Amino acid sequence: MLVLITYDVNTETAAGRSRLRKVAKQCTNYGQRVQNSVFECNMDAAKCRQVKAILEEIIDKDKDSLRFYYLGDNYKNKVEHIGAKPGFDVTETLFI
Amino acid sequence: MLVLITYDVNTETAAGRSRLRKVAKQCTNYGQRVQNSVFECNMDAAKCRQVKAILEEIIDKDKDSLRFYYLGDNYKNKVEHIGAKPGFDVTETLFI
Repeated sequence: MLVLITYDVNTETAAGRSRLRKVAKQCTNYGQRVQNSVFECNMDAAKCRQVKAILEEIIDKDKDSLRFYYLGDNYKNKVEHIGAKPGFDVTETLFI
Repeated sequence: MLVLITYDVNTETAAGRSRLRKVAKQCTNYGQRVQNSVFECNMDAAKCRQVKAILEEIIDKDKDSLRFYYLGDNYKNKVEHIGAKPGFDVTETLFI
């Protein structure tokens, strides 16, 4: 299923900027960055619980937030991109 | 239907920062800000075309991006929030 992860991390402090880097780094292990704070992750429920637990450990829940949107398996017509840097289809094999 | 609008606007220049303010301002006319660059808009297809056309006019398509996620009408169990500043339910009446 496609899970969209969006986050806001308060970067007013060095600790906040460190949290932001850690959140982004973890998200890249699970999906494709489509915007600065938006990742699309094609994963099963177990992987989803895993990344959620990892991110919850990193953020400061009083200052930062995470949102998870569950788009299911049939998501191709549910997503539209306009402008710069479109994300590629995470379900398609990449040939280099 | 619930439409999620996410955006990245390049704010390296004053013009970019102006575009960012305009995009955010327009989005507030259509929905609820749930994170810095994430809005949830409960709207019909006509409204959605309208906001899309307005935002497309504002952004620089070489530098900025918009993403629209169509979550349908049955979205309550498709969204999960962790941490600070949860958005309220845009379909519920607000009594003050």
